[in-house]
Amino acid sequence: MDDISIYSKQGFGNSSGFGGTPALLIVDFVNGFCDPECFGGGNILDAVNQTRLLLDQARKSNLPIVHTRIVYEEDSADNGVFCEKVPGLERLTETASIGQIVEPLKPRKGEHVVRKTQPSAFFGTGLAAWLIGKNVSTVVVAGCTTSGCVRASVVDSMSYNFKTIVVSDCVGDRAMGPHEANLFDMGQKYADIHTCKETINSIIKLQSAV
Amino acid sequence: MDDISIYSKQGFGNSSGFGGTPALLIVDFVNGFCDPECFGGGNILDAVNQTRLLLDQARKSNLPIVHTRIVYEEDSADNGVFCEKVPGLERLTETASIGQIVEPLKPRKGEHVVRKTQPSAFFGTGLAAWLIGKNVSTVVVAGCTTSGCVRASVVDSMSYNFKTIVVSDCVGDRAMGPHEANLFDMGQKYADIHTCKETINSIIKLQSAV
Amino acid sequence: MDDISIYSKQGFGNSSGFGGTPALLIVDFVNGFCDPECFGGGNILDAVNQTRLLLDQARKSNLPIVHTRIVYEEDSADNGVFCEKVPGLERLTETASIGQIVEPLKPRKGEHVVRKTQPSAFFGTGLAAWLIGKNVSTVVVAGCTTSGCVRASVVDSMSYNFKTIVVSDCVGDRAMGPHEANLFDMGQKYADIHTCKETINSIIKLQSAV
Amino acid sequence: MDDISIYSKQGFGNSSGFGGTPALLIVDFVNGFCDPECFGGGNILDAVNQTRLLLDQARKSNLPIVHTRIVYEEDSADNGVFCEKVPGLERLTETASIGQIVEPLKPRKGEHVVRKTQPSAFFGTGLAAWLIGKNVSTVVVAGCTTSGCVRASVVDSMSYNFKTIVVSDCVGDRAMGPHEANLFDMGQKYADIHTCKETINSIIKLQSAV
Repeated sequence: MDDISIYSKQGFGNSSGFGGTPALLIVDFVNGFCDPECFGGGNILDAVNQTRLLLDQARKSNLPIVHTRIVYEEDSADNGVFCEKVPGLERLTETASIGQIVEPLKPRKGEHVVRKTQPSAFFGTGLAAWLIGKNVSTVVVAGCTTSGCVRASVVDSMSYNFKTIVVSDCVGDRAMGPHEANLFDMGQKYADIHTCKETINSIIKLQSAV
Repeated sequence: MDDISIYSKQGFGNSSGFGGTPALLIVDFVNGFCDPECFGGGNILDAVNQTRLLLDQARKSNLPIVHTRIVYEEDSADNGVFCEKVPGLERLTETASIGQIVEPLKPRKGEHVVRKTQPSAFFGTGLAAWLIGKNVSTVVVAGCTTSGCVRASVVDSMSYNFKTIVVSDCVGDRAMGPHEANLFDMGQKYADIHTCKETINSIIKLQSAV
Repeated sequence: MDDISIYSKQGFGNSSGFGGTPALLIVDFVNGFCDPECFGGGNILDAVNQTRLLLDQARKSNLPIVHTRIVYEEDSADNGVFCEKVPGLERLTETASIGQIVEPLKPRKGEHVVRKTQPSAFFGTGLAAWLIGKNVSTVVVAGCTTSGCVRASVVDSMSYNFKTIVVSDCVGDRAMGPHEANLFDMGQKYADIHTCKETINSIIKLQSAV
Repeated sequence: MDDISIYSKQGFGNSSGFGGTPALLIVDFVNGFCDPECFGGGNILDAVNQTRLLLDQARKSNLPIVHTRIVYEEDSADNGVFCEKVPGLERLTETASIGQIVEPLKPRKGEHVVRKTQPSAFFGTGLAAWLIGKNVSTVVVAGCTTSGCVRASVVDSMSYNFKTIVVSDCVGDRAMGPHEANLFDMGQKYADIHTCKETINSIIKLQSAV
């Protein structure tokens, strides 16, 4: 990718910063996306493990926490074009084991679980309203896949004018090419890319400033 | 990208098809995105030239046609996080030369021009409603950049359950790596990827079937 | 309301018509809105009874059918301003008896059930996308309350450019003043107001025309 | 409206309060809505005069300020169902005199002007994102008409979880019946209703608390 030097020449890749009142958004870390025989693979399990650290800190700091799951109705009444492109998605129902959030990141009482049928955590959901209700300015994003639901959620988060942080080692994908390509796109245009360690430090620093 | 074989193994990349009542969506083919000294470069000019053929057919077939432009207010009142990530976007104002649709694709009377401040043609605009009012089922997408506003618009088009066609030689980007990576992502998960020639044939065939 | 003659003088109240491909949208006919000791009262039970006839026809004609329910999370994680204005709404949870759709209108397999936390059936839900996926042009609205969730859903339906029909004897409210006032507003500006009988005739006529 | 006692019995009409960081939203105070020969009449001119006081205070207090206008394209390319219900709306174009914001409330540099084609200031616009970018928690609403674009905007503002204040003497309508009926609905379910004087005092108090 030699020709990507044009991005810096044209002024892309500036930082939008880490603003006040962050929320943690964990996208689609469900069993089926952690299983290479289903929709998983690549570095997704590593990302789950790192996200555990991030989630611990978010809980300690009392940040608003949101988890997302893809959930289709049992009778397929709400299947759409996404299920035509990726047959099998419709098996992610309310009760299916592959659709449950992975054990190490199980939501606790008071954490918001967004059910969605589309890639973005914001599309056709109450997420934007929920974040407004919590006075959130910054959305910290973990989850999978980097090239799918994470990317779509990050574009919408930025479009809603939330300062958006993608935690590079807390997002994962079933293949590394798309993972890297999408981190590049997001960092250039939509979000700041921080490591888990950097993000935890930012959260701690923000708290001690209050 | 050897590991992407996992996509076909997991059932990605199925076709969602070319449904009835297509509309043509031309994303951000404005002067500033055709100039390598501004936000242009790569294969964008080639894509403009090909899109001229597609637009000619769409006009002949009386398809609903939409053009998008990024437009910010002169006094910067509506700048947001996108302008922080990519300083200079805010120069794309109503009257700025860099913000005007390129001469060969100038909108005609009755074609809808969507002004937007975010990557997706659907975000914060009346585009979904406009397409519903025209009974559109299929959205055919040309424009730039493949890795930016085209990708964001395609994800939203699919999320709204429009069958979505990305016209591979009518979309362009300032660098080929992101162009190719995003065509891959879109073809696997959100849209069918057709050439300009294939798309024109589909439009003609659909018409003769009526 | 003598001064409302100004509406006809200024050209309000025109018909937007009954277009092709209607869907039936039944708003919030749940137990709690049929019980005067909870959120019910007025003419809501009459509206339920009439809606049964409309639903029968819609099923016979294979129209796309959507039901809505207000559903909040058991742990109140997604309560917001609406629950502050109307305490008690948060009791409408997934399993609460007051939140279940009334027995005579129980959804059948393939009918879409939209869970929502706000007045409009479209806000923060996948309803617009679902209707697009079914190629719907006209939304026929029954439900309760006329002055609340019906009104909000009708405004959004029209805003999405669906031709919108409010079925006057299939919508109900806990008090008749707001019921009448909102039928007036909707008929003047957003929707055509038809009786159940007229609507059933329109559906039958449309089918025989196919 | 004797039967409306049921509202208090069922717990409606609670206060959602005046939260931090208010913004002022002035809906559709354009020439055509102030002229009884066009879409005006009733108490709209009185509301404009009162809004001047509110706007002065909002400017003094440096609140984020938004004005809305209905704007359709000159060639009618974006007309929809709303224009079918209310023929003549399509004359509200970018340059038409009837579509301009009234002289006493002319927007100043840095105030955001939202162009819309639907009743709600939020529908198909970037308003929610703009308010998020300004960290707004409370939306104070003036404008016209109470039973039309104000009501629609208030429902959406509340749905986005903004605490919403309707300023009773800064909203107006062409006829008093719908004006009163909609103030009732909004006060019971969506917003707190304050006078201009009360609102100005709340803004001043909030500032001195900082």
